[in-house]
Amino acid sequence: MPDDCHAPGFVAMHASMTAPAIILSHPQLGENIGAAARAMANFALSDLRLVKPRDGWPNERANVMAVGASYVLDDARVFPTLPEAIGDLQFVLATTARNRGFAKQIYTPEAGVKLLREAIARGETCGILFGNERTGLENDEVSLSSAVITVPTSEEFSSINLGQAVLLIAYEWFKSGDATPGYRLEHGPIARKATREEMIHLFTHLERELLANGFLYPPDKADTMIRNIRAMLSRAEFTDQEVRTLRGIIVALAEGKHRKRGTNPQG
Amino acid sequence: MPDDCHAPGFVAMHASMTAPAIILSHPQLGENIGAAARAMANFALSDLRLVKPRDGWPNERANVMAVGASYVLDDARVFPTLPEAIGDLQFVLATTARNRGFAKQIYTPEAGVKLLREAIARGETCGILFGNERTGLENDEVSLSSAVITVPTSEEFSSINLGQAVLLIAYEWFKSGDATPGYRLEHGPIARKATREEMIHLFTHLERELLANGFLYPPDKADTMIRNIRAMLSRAEFTDQEVRTLRGIIVALAEGKHRKRGTNPQG
Repeated sequence: MPDDCHAPGFVAMHASMTAPAIILSHPQLGENIGAAARAMANFALSDLRLVKPRDGWPNERANVMAVGASYVLDDARVFPTLPEAIGDLQFVLATTARNRGFAKQIYTPEAGVKLLREAIARGETCGILFGNERTGLENDEVSLSSAVITVPTSEEFSSINLGQAVLLIAYEWFKSGDATPGYRLEHGPIARKATREEMIHLFTHLERELLANGFLYPPDKADTMIRNIRAMLSRAEFTDQEVRTLRGIIVALAEGKHRKRGTNPQG
Repeated sequence: MPDDCHAPGFVAMHASMTAPAIILSHPQLGENIGAAARAMANFALSDLRLVKPRDGWPNERANVMAVGASYVLDDARVFPTLPEAIGDLQFVLATTARNRGFAKQIYTPEAGVKLLREAIARGETCGILFGNERTGLENDEVSLSSAVITVPTSEEFSSINLGQAVLLIAYEWFKSGDATPGYRLEHGPIARKATREEMIHLFTHLERELLANGFLYPPDKADTMIRNIRAMLSRAEFTDQEVRTLRGIIVALAEGKHRKRGTNPQG
């Protein structure tokens, strides 16, 4: 946006913000800032804002902890106060564990990131706000946010580390926009899932050998045995390669038996 | 279970396992074992099994990192090999990031923990297996598991720390059994959400004062203005206390004006 757009009353905004900013208010340990940066990189977030980090900025321990994600730290912006850090944002979720004693809308991380997706789809600028390690967010800080996210935890042990909190929320953010199917069959580059025809050939091959070797006995139980074997093999979702391997195993076992028989007719 | 139950062929099992075990195979850093224990405590898991931790066991750095969750570490069991660590389990999910080149069923964490819930509901003993920090799980280790979980991440930066991986899966486990509503209104102990009657009294009070003070002008726009104000105030989901506060504000502003008028008729 060119500078001459700065008409009186104009508030500078990210023209096309496609993901929420992560705002850490008064973070204490460089390690946690680094862990937060790494979690952001894992889940495709990049706008990191720090309100008055206790140990100054930049922070070498943050860089060590961020490993390959130090580009997030390099681009991080430091602000003297929270109102300045979130001034351009239109929808801010605060993360808190404690009950605040004043009325707030509380969302689970999953429901909260859905709100963020909806806000971004409407063109709004968004952020997620995290308090410091010792006390979390102050009530004054929470009161500047639009709503609150609380991570559900075991009641016996609810304390979540700052870096871990960023990780969980960033993970939910990424998941809410991710199309990975809940289940998939992974196989090697030249394999594919077997067709029904390949499976039926496997079945008939195996059953022919089982019949020849007297396994399908007594005859009135043979149909049930065949159905059970087919069900068992179908459940495994073989690839075409695995079907070929199995047919090779059948051949090897059956021929081995024939060979053994051939060399030792009394065996 | 009394010892005399150990009849020949009996496999010792957790009689009533209600949550999966967490198995760390050849973990290197005590810090990560401690972080894993803490994540387990956060999300109501307690059966930690370690396969040959590199730096021996117990590990002081693990205890420092676990903070209040060292009871998980105290109860952790150490095994010399993975087959021994998972021998009593019936359904084991392996967590991996890399494609393995052999066919495996891959689940997202969300879909994977659903399988665990189902297996546990059937009375099966379950575990979730994590590889070491440097190489993750070996192919041989993955091949001992029932299926694989892979955390979806940004393609640009997919490396997840061991403690973080345990945290994400433990979080999904907890969430899958957690009934926290996606959204709730939190308020102080003596407040509750306002009734429609209280809101209607607020509206009529405010509108009476606005009318008296000439705000609802011109008259043919008054209905629209009233509807907009009511919509705006309804959206905020006030508590009963907040409605009383607002009515106090209205009284203060309106009476202040009356008083000012009274003391300064020319004002």
